[in-house]
Amino acid sequence: MASEGSDMGSTGEINGSGNLMDFLDEPIPDVGTYEDFHTIDWLREKSRDTDRHRKIANKSKESIWEFIKGLLDAWSGWVVMLLIGLLAGTLAGVIDLAVDWMTDLKEGVCLSAFWYSHEQCCWTSNETTFDDRDKCPQWQKWSELMVGRSEGASAYVLNYFLYVMWALTFAFLAVSLVRVFAPYACGSGIPEIKTILSGFIIRGYLGKWTLLIKTVTLVLAVSSGLSLGKEGPLVHVACCCGNLFSGLFSKYSKNEAKRREVLSAAAAAGVSVAFGAPIGGVLFSLEEVSYYFPLKTLWRSFFAALVAAFTLRSINPFGNSRLVLFYVEYHTPWYMAELFPFILLGVFGGLWGTLFVRGNIAWCHRRKTTLLGKYPVLEVIAVTAITAIVAFPNPYTRRSTSELISELFNDCGALESSQLCDYINDSNMTRPIDDIPDRPAGPGVYAALWQLALALIFKIVITIFTFGMKIPSGLFIPSMAVGAIAGRIVGIGVEQMAYHHHDWIIFKNWCRPGADCVTPGLYAMVGAAACLGGVTRMTVSLVVIMFELTGGLEYIVPLMAAAVTSKWVADAFGKEGIYESHIHLNGYPFLDVKDEFTHRTLATDVMRPRRSEPPLAVLTQDSTTVEDVETLIKDTDYNGFPVVVSKESERLIGFVQRRDLLLAIKSARQKQDGVVSSSVVYFIEDAPQSPASSPQSLKLRRILNLCPFTVTDHTPMETVVDIFRKLGLRQCLVTRSGRLLGIITKKDVLRHMAQMANQDPESIMFN
Amino acid sequence: MASEGSDMGSTGEINGSGNLMDFLDEPIPDVGTYEDFHTIDWLREKSRDTDRHRKIANKSKESIWEFIKGLLDAWSGWVVMLLIGLLAGTLAGVIDLAVDWMTDLKEGVCLSAFWYSHEQCCWTSNETTFDDRDKCPQWQKWSELMVGRSEGASAYVLNYFLYVMWALTFAFLAVSLVRVFAPYACGSGIPEIKTILSGFIIRGYLGKWTLLIKTVTLVLAVSSGLSLGKEGPLVHVACCCGNLFSGLFSKYSKNEAKRREVLSAAAAAGVSVAFGAPIGGVLFSLEEVSYYFPLKTLWRSFFAALVAAFTLRSINPFGNSRLVLFYVEYHTPWYMAELFPFILLGVFGGLWGTLFVRGNIAWCHRRKTTLLGKYPVLEVIAVTAITAIVAFPNPYTRRSTSELISELFNDCGALESSQLCDYINDSNMTRPIDDIPDRPAGPGVYAALWQLALALIFKIVITIFTFGMKIPSGLFIPSMAVGAIAGRIVGIGVEQMAYHHHDWIIFKNWCRPGADCVTPGLYAMVGAAACLGGVTRMTVSLVVIMFELTGGLEYIVPLMAAAVTSKWVADAFGKEGIYESHIHLNGYPFLDVKDEFTHRTLATDVMRPRRSEPPLAVLTQDSTTVEDVETLIKDTDYNGFPVVVSKESERLIGFVQRRDLLLAIKSARQKQDGVVSSSVVYFIEDAPQSPASSPQSLKLRRILNLCPFTVTDHTPMETVVDIFRKLGLRQCLVTRSGRLLGIITKKDVLRHMAQMANQDPESIMFN
Repeated sequence: MASEGSDMGSTGEINGSGNLMDFLDEPIPDVGTYEDFHTIDWLREKSRDTDRHRKIANKSKESIWEFIKGLLDAWSGWVVMLLIGLLAGTLAGVIDLAVDWMTDLKEGVCLSAFWYSHEQCCWTSNETTFDDRDKCPQWQKWSELMVGRSEGASAYVLNYFLYVMWALTFAFLAVSLVRVFAPYACGSGIPEIKTILSGFIIRGYLGKWTLLIKTVTLVLAVSSGLSLGKEGPLVHVACCCGNLFSGLFSKYSKNEAKRREVLSAAAAAGVSVAFGAPIGGVLFSLEEVSYYFPLKTLWRSFFAALVAAFTLRSINPFGNSRLVLFYVEYHTPWYMAELFPFILLGVFGGLWGTLFVRGNIAWCHRRKTTLLGKYPVLEVIAVTAITAIVAFPNPYTRRSTSELISELFNDCGALESSQLCDYINDSNMTRPIDDIPDRPAGPGVYAALWQLALALIFKIVITIFTFGMKIPSGLFIPSMAVGAIAGRIVGIGVEQMAYHHHDWIIFKNWCRPGADCVTPGLYAMVGAAACLGGVTRMTVSLVVIMFELTGGLEYIVPLMAAAVTSKWVADAFGKEGIYESHIHLNGYPFLDVKDEFTHRTLATDVMRPRRSEPPLAVLTQDSTTVEDVETLIKDTDYNGFPVVVSKESERLIGFVQRRDLLLAIKSARQKQDGVVSSSVVYFIEDAPQSPASSPQSLKLRRILNLCPFTVTDHTPMETVVDIFRKLGLRQCLVTRSGRLLGIITKKDVLRHMAQMANQDPESIMFN
Repeated sequence: MASEGSDMGSTGEINGSGNLMDFLDEPIPDVGTYEDFHTIDWLREKSRDTDRHRKIANKSKESIWEFIKGLLDAWSGWVVMLLIGLLAGTLAGVIDLAVDWMTDLKEGVCLSAFWYSHEQCCWTSNETTFDDRDKCPQWQKWSELMVGRSEGASAYVLNYFLYVMWALTFAFLAVSLVRVFAPYACGSGIPEIKTILSGFIIRGYLGKWTLLIKTVTLVLAVSSGLSLGKEGPLVHVACCCGNLFSGLFSKYSKNEAKRREVLSAAAAAGVSVAFGAPIGGVLFSLEEVSYYFPLKTLWRSFFAALVAAFTLRSINPFGNSRLVLFYVEYHTPWYMAELFPFILLGVFGGLWGTLFVRGNIAWCHRRKTTLLGKYPVLEVIAVTAITAIVAFPNPYTRRSTSELISELFNDCGALESSQLCDYINDSNMTRPIDDIPDRPAGPGVYAALWQLALALIFKIVITIFTFGMKIPSGLFIPSMAVGAIAGRIVGIGVEQMAYHHHDWIIFKNWCRPGADCVTPGLYAMVGAAACLGGVTRMTVSLVVIMFELTGGLEYIVPLMAAAVTSKWVADAFGKEGIYESHIHLNGYPFLDVKDEFTHRTLATDVMRPRRSEPPLAVLTQDSTTVEDVETLIKDTDYNGFPVVVSKESERLIGFVQRRDLLLAIKSARQKQDGVVSSSVVYFIEDAPQSPASSPQSLKLRRILNLCPFTVTDHTPMETVVDIFRKLGLRQCLVTRSGRLLGIITKKDVLRHMAQMANQDPESIMFN
């Protein structure tokens, strides 16, 4: 459906670009581009790219220079990927470092160099012992610096006060920057990116300002201690990089379909740096974000994801030359009987996913429809204040969420000094340090359990209200935190049960006294996967990301069991994950590949005009005047008009876009002499020479799409939906026996699908 | 385009199944099925599945029992996956054990239990020391058993003779079994599976006999020592399992599109057990084998691949409770400068890929066209004899190829006793055993280098002649062997260069004397990846499989560099991998998703009838007699006929399949009184009551497809190709202004693509 490609003689000979110039010497500017908030036509874009390609291939035979230019053009895709990987990796590294520093700034400052985080500060100090790694003279809490005391009530109050103040400052800065400079920088960005990738235009969403502001405010938002993560926004940041670099090559900047290939790969790079999981990133892009994902994009995404991951590793923000966010290593295999608690965690994850999606959507709906939405700054300040005030007293909520997850995932080694590892050691233990048998829990563990339970309730409640505020906010980390806390609690429970009751039948087979049978850290990881799966409904990419975090195939089965259970449980309460729900809430025209349409309706039931409506607005090929066209454009708001042989025969010859028609008439009125309101508009190939008496005619075959997509009125809607999805159509004409009956647009399809889904909610069970 | 779904009133109301019975009480048997070697219509199959689905969903509201049946139906997909995983894993385990035993049988026998392989035999023996693991009294070489001597010329000759004899016996058995019982069991099967998955019917290719014979002959073929692997055939075996189990559920057995979803997942399970790489298996199925791969299939494939991998691990054929075929662990990172030899290996891999594809295709072409093809048994015997005779004297070709690869991949630990690890040790070495510095090569290494070089040449030549013979043969293992040998040779070269010239600039930065800088095993692995990539043109799945073999993200960059280089080099000489080449050689109608069609032709250039040909054979809706139809069917061999309003107006109303037409007329002549040759065939909805004088009319609207796919004559062929690919069409009608002009079938599209590709081979460079 290329406007360029379709302009050939019906005799089948290839006329080159000769008759492209049939009414103007230069092409009409902007013909073939899209307006903001409109849907692109994938087939036309791809066709345009093929034309471009063909021109370059033809030219490249002419001279060496053109040949080299052709080669460079062919390689530009890889160059863009390289640049995206480098920038996304660098930004992720910078964000990690900045977040680290600013999070610690809420508690104290490094005297030797104020730009050091707590860990870096004590790292450079030589006086620390191994046990007391996080205490060193250079690092001073605010109370030490200001009143000279680190303990006592006054010091606690002062630290508390400054913690809340810093949090409020960061949050205020973040929300103000978003409000003033880049409103699109808020939220996670994934719902919008999914919509954009499915072929929708949202101008500025991936612009330079958004990139800059989102990067800065992401650091502020995460540092403020709110219950949000950086993963979703990092995908948005990477896509902004993709958009930025695709602007360097006309191959990508001028073609919306090609640009989306770059964006798909950029999304993979974003997840790759968020978790240090390049393969998981590619699968995330494939499973969750992308709409059109050809194999070529698969290879390029993989390349971009790898470059990004290695750039991040070179920056080495975690100081351990590990690629992954939460590196874990377990020493014990899992046992069949443990599948039961794993599946329970899956059920918990599914329930949490349902609760979160419903609660968050209800709250966001409220925000959209009530006064609340008018005061985004106040809302952020209020939520931050509550978060900071509640979080400070509990050591598990005070620290950053990713540190918390990291601790929950960890196996208790012999040297671990945290409260969670406060087990009662057997005095005559002689095992190697890596293989510690199950031990009874000490008072520290019981205290930790209480604190974790409180943290769990707090995280569950506050996350529902946090996601969707006017600051960058991802939900991977909070979801994983909820799951990790629940998992660790269950894990410790199972471990203690196995220790105290190892004569029970279920434990007898696999848990001899003095053996290391249960790894609570693994439960935390399984719980995290379950909760993340419940919220996002990812499966394969989720398991692969988790697999890349641990690097062991051993734990794929527990993760898979939990992820699948959680998806099933969550799906039983509602098919949509959080991203799809937000897409619906915002009313974006997104045709989900995953939804199956199983209703028995036909194209004729969906097409417009309906029986009661006036007939379809059409143009005729050789009897419409400029004035008629202008009236039609003024009276209707359709995006395009079918062109027929005559109103009587109703035989379709093509389709013309409203925008192209407007531009062409405007341009003709300005530049062509003799084109007036009574000029006849010709869409046929050989327009008759107008006699001298009548006004100059206007030939518009150039902008006519001669191959509009048609289906018959008997076509089942499931086929129509399939065609819309797979070919990425904007509209489709409906005919019977060659006669034009009506039109179906993407919006009609979406509306019909929503209608049918409401009529028959039970069908969900069987999909 | 469901025959059931399309049969509704044009008023748009849903009539249920009421008027389905318009000319016969029962449905015509076999209407809607396909003949052997025909292409399926994806849209129709999917539409049929939706109908089924809808019926079950409606029924499930009627009673609890129907509800449970509905749930079971919804779950049957997972059940099939579970069964496939279990059977494929079991078969893979059995094949591994049998191959192990029979390969060793060529050299000797275990006296304590003849069904033990060499390793198992000596494993059970307590008398062996660690150094001399493979010598134990229970294991006797044939010469020891027969003439009582294990050394000396006569023993050597006897062992040599028996080695060749056993090889010939195995090969003869294999080729005879294939010839007599299951001709489809030969080859790797992947080209055919790709074709089947793209929507082609090859009856019996995935049948029970093929499964049984392929499993047995695969063991024989691999044991015979021929230069072939078990990976490709394992995919075929897994797909046979998939076909077998999909027969248990009518959901899959009666729907060709749904059956293909199961087969895609089965292919993933096959690779999963071949390499112990479940994620790599899923990506292989996605990247290399599958045609239509919805997200649902992604999840299920993953599940099947996991189940299969864990079943295999439970059987534990390698005796090391490792999942993977070649488990490796390296202790040294790689350095930037090493990218140069890695890329060189990539170039080698690309060249090998080109040589192999061209050579093998030329030889297979010769086999197809000359007398050679008449004597498959003789050919196999001859190749086996040459292989065995040449292979025995060289220790690196005598053993099984997978053992060879395993040794080449391995890093030389301190305890390694093989010839390849015969380095000159520094006497005062005090390092821990895992971290051995680079050492000068000893005489054993130099001897090994010569033998490896000879083995390389031998493998390169013999593999070209082996692949495609009438026995099961995969090419993963031989390709990897070629690459691993080349890689190891390069690796040892670089290592020795770094040792002897560590003052050279390139080594100075990363290789201090006494450090462990170069791991020759890593070079072997990179070389294997490069050669496999050159032959198959896989990229992502290849890297992921290799990544799963090592379990470390560290080596992704070298692997990626080699894989991409090898693909680029090989693509420069010809776009097609070995599977696509074999598909073309065999003339299967396979429309590759990866080929880009960039030529400027229109639908009108491709459609039939051409200008010089007689007009299109059409039926009219209400004026054709049974005799006319029968004449048309007899005179033409088209697969279907468009139905038009009248020959004059040429307005299309539908499309009828030749097979359905034949069956319907036959059935009507048998069962309906009064249907004679002069009966009028009506395709319209309300056929007029025939007057008493004229013969009973025949109403065939039931078999008419009322929503045939149409494009206009101006549609660019690239769009048509895209539509054929994405929607899986069989044919497409061409219209202009509502008038039927011609038809384009899948074969026309393929023919046109081949024509255009021959005209313009240079365009390859720019894709």
